[in-house]
Amino acid sequence: MKNILLLGAGRSSSVLLKYLQEHASSSDWKISVADISLSHAREMVKNDVAFSFHDLNKSADIKEKLIQQSDIVISMLPASCHLEVAQLCLKHKKNLVTASYVSPEMKALETDVIKSGLVFMNEAGLDPGLDHISAMKIIDDLRSKGALIHGFESFCGGLIAPENDNNPWRYKFTWNPRNVVVAGQGGAAKFLQEGTFKYIPYHKLFRRTEVIEIEGYGKFEGYANRDSLKYIDIYGLQGIKTIFRGTLRRLGFCRAWDLFVQLGMTDDSYQITDSDKMTHRQFINLFLAYNKHDSVELKLKYYMKLEQDDVDIWEKLEYTGIFSNEKIGLKNATPAQILQHILEKKWKLNPQDKDMIIMFHRFNYKMNNEMKELHSYLVVEGEDEHNTAMAKTVGLPVGIVAKMILNNEIKRKGVLVPVNAEVYQPILEELKQYGIQFIEKEVI
Amino acid sequence: MKNILLLGAGRSSSVLLKYLQEHASSSDWKISVADISLSHAREMVKNDVAFSFHDLNKSADIKEKLIQQSDIVISMLPASCHLEVAQLCLKHKKNLVTASYVSPEMKALETDVIKSGLVFMNEAGLDPGLDHISAMKIIDDLRSKGALIHGFESFCGGLIAPENDNNPWRYKFTWNPRNVVVAGQGGAAKFLQEGTFKYIPYHKLFRRTEVIEIEGYGKFEGYANRDSLKYIDIYGLQGIKTIFRGTLRRLGFCRAWDLFVQLGMTDDSYQITDSDKMTHRQFINLFLAYNKHDSVELKLKYYMKLEQDDVDIWEKLEYTGIFSNEKIGLKNATPAQILQHILEKKWKLNPQDKDMIIMFHRFNYKMNNEMKELHSYLVVEGEDEHNTAMAKTVGLPVGIVAKMILNNEIKRKGVLVPVNAEVYQPILEELKQYGIQFIEKEVI
Repeated sequence: MKNILLLGAGRSSSVLLKYLQEHASSSDWKISVADISLSHAREMVKNDVAFSFHDLNKSADIKEKLIQQSDIVISMLPASCHLEVAQLCLKHKKNLVTASYVSPEMKALETDVIKSGLVFMNEAGLDPGLDHISAMKIIDDLRSKGALIHGFESFCGGLIAPENDNNPWRYKFTWNPRNVVVAGQGGAAKFLQEGTFKYIPYHKLFRRTEVIEIEGYGKFEGYANRDSLKYIDIYGLQGIKTIFRGTLRRLGFCRAWDLFVQLGMTDDSYQITDSDKMTHRQFINLFLAYNKHDSVELKLKYYMKLEQDDVDIWEKLEYTGIFSNEKIGLKNATPAQILQHILEKKWKLNPQDKDMIIMFHRFNYKMNNEMKELHSYLVVEGEDEHNTAMAKTVGLPVGIVAKMILNNEIKRKGVLVPVNAEVYQPILEELKQYGIQFIEKEVI
Repeated sequence: MKNILLLGAGRSSSVLLKYLQEHASSSDWKISVADISLSHAREMVKNDVAFSFHDLNKSADIKEKLIQQSDIVISMLPASCHLEVAQLCLKHKKNLVTASYVSPEMKALETDVIKSGLVFMNEAGLDPGLDHISAMKIIDDLRSKGALIHGFESFCGGLIAPENDNNPWRYKFTWNPRNVVVAGQGGAAKFLQEGTFKYIPYHKLFRRTEVIEIEGYGKFEGYANRDSLKYIDIYGLQGIKTIFRGTLRRLGFCRAWDLFVQLGMTDDSYQITDSDKMTHRQFINLFLAYNKHDSVELKLKYYMKLEQDDVDIWEKLEYTGIFSNEKIGLKNATPAQILQHILEKKWKLNPQDKDMIIMFHRFNYKMNNEMKELHSYLVVEGEDEHNTAMAKTVGLPVGIVAKMILNNEIKRKGVLVPVNAEVYQPILEELKQYGIQFIEKEVI
């Protein structure tokens, strides 16, 4: 009997837990789940054991004991909680899986993790996770054929499925709304294009998009992620001429979103006094020049240089309710918090709404003295409220990798990410059973 | 005999020191000057005593002893050095004058400063300094006449004198170049206009300017300073409907400067690898979209929506040499550092160049049921390399306030700024002898 401890039973854990439960009896696993809400954890685990963080926090001993009793710990907690868990795992010599980026502090544990013969597998969800898994498979393939990789561009987006894609933005909050509102902040986007470094400041990010077409799904646009350059080392692509990672939205989203950026409504660095008593209309007016006579609408159009017939963008703006006299009702909030609050009223998922994940890679490479282009993409649509595309694409890779560790199928030890064939091959193989399969196309 | 210790003998100290020396014999003052460069300090002090910071730093005791032996300390050091000096002044019960903003740490000393019967007068230079002094004089005047102040706008700029105003930007670095390049960064500009809060994000700051005309000097444009709202409390203007503070440039400067902002070339948050080997032209190209065939110039014009006949703005850009193939020669520098380095080659003051200070206040107020408008402005031109307008307008108020403290003419004790009549009246009066006099005009 092997003990699995799952920390965090949030939205991304539902498919993961189902996967673990499906394998529990045949593999002789015992699953324990700890969540901030005991009732939620109980509901999720069915016949397994549930704990709440309130209990755990009351007594750090219980948390440590749970880890001590487990064979593997899967942490789906917020990224900031992983280090403490990792240190306890190291102390009691337990393996660990997370779907979060490796922090420098986590990386610093590597020598001790190797010494203890453990696997701390991170970045094992969707993004990061499936991006590594799917990209490295092709990179290794191409190299084994003697190709020289010239360029790699990669896009991922959490979107709304076509059948529920029914608002002018063609977007709903299928994931953490805050991350969407502050996306791109905190520094210029950095990438490499045809051998030249390129830098895009935040206030230009949503106007420097690239258009991607996915067969059967139409066109999308991608804006640059913060740091594409680090993937040169992660994927061993030293000498590559183009490397770019971006986030996908439906065509037209970014130009409209840019209006909020230009106005300063995504700023999260200061609070607006008495924001609760303000209306949506007064909120947007904070960012417009004063004029006694002119309407908020005309001032906005003039400031943002919107043409009278820019109807698409105007329809999006009006849809948000940003011009309404509705009270905000959120006290001393930052512009970003207020904007999120207003958008959540419109971009909220309905219970029957299905989400959609799109991942797209473009490889340009030279083989036999010819330049070639290969696309690899994945579309996953959600099934229902619990079996969302996001929960599937995050939870299944995590579950599979946990199973592989329990079965001692990962030989490499240390603080890892799934970029090696011994890890990504079996994951890609098993994902096919769940309908998750990348489509590859030689374009040139 | 009174001992004056002047810490820092930089550019802004020359007129100050001359002022002190002029009063030394009649007032029986002994002046000691400490600077980072002993030879510079020696050159400045003539017959007085000079010390270097290198000596001081070697032995903290000497620094403390110098303070202990003085009756007043004038710190013209960088703002970050004031606190340590202030603590030593408090310990040895010495008065202090600075031309810098009161930090929260400095403010925290207030109770002890009052207990010790000391004056720590800060913000006693130009901006902050003369702005308080000249504004409070009018605010107190208007109030004593029963006026209700409706709006207060205030602008200040360090510029080049008309006779040396001979480049397309109509600007040279008459002061710390770095502050000019990163000006406006670090958060949205906040002000109040007709009872409504207004917020301008950095990337819109240089396109939301206000035009000011100064008789005999033509038109200027002002961009908003970071936080105008704090002056409501400093000047006791609670209930005011409009409060705005800005920085002045010659007309057309800001729109051209905004191009650098839009491109991301003023970013100081990341370093560019191998920037020393790059040319100016390659530097600007980092911020432009890749295209194999198009020129840097056309890509820039298209991206920034410059018309073919936007000749003024184009002349400014070309003047900077930003399109040249000259090597940058600055290693691993931030975009802001590189831009500063490039601009310094063009905007450097020649030895015969004279600077100019402009300060402008607009007061709107209600008196006898009538709305009135009053302007008050000051123009100071530099005389020569040493007697710059900046050195005069910073150094003279500091010198005068130091004299007032030595003569025990300031009754209020504590960590102060010059907003009270007992301080600003004598300063304004004495400044007239040096040709520094505000012109007041009732406009409506």
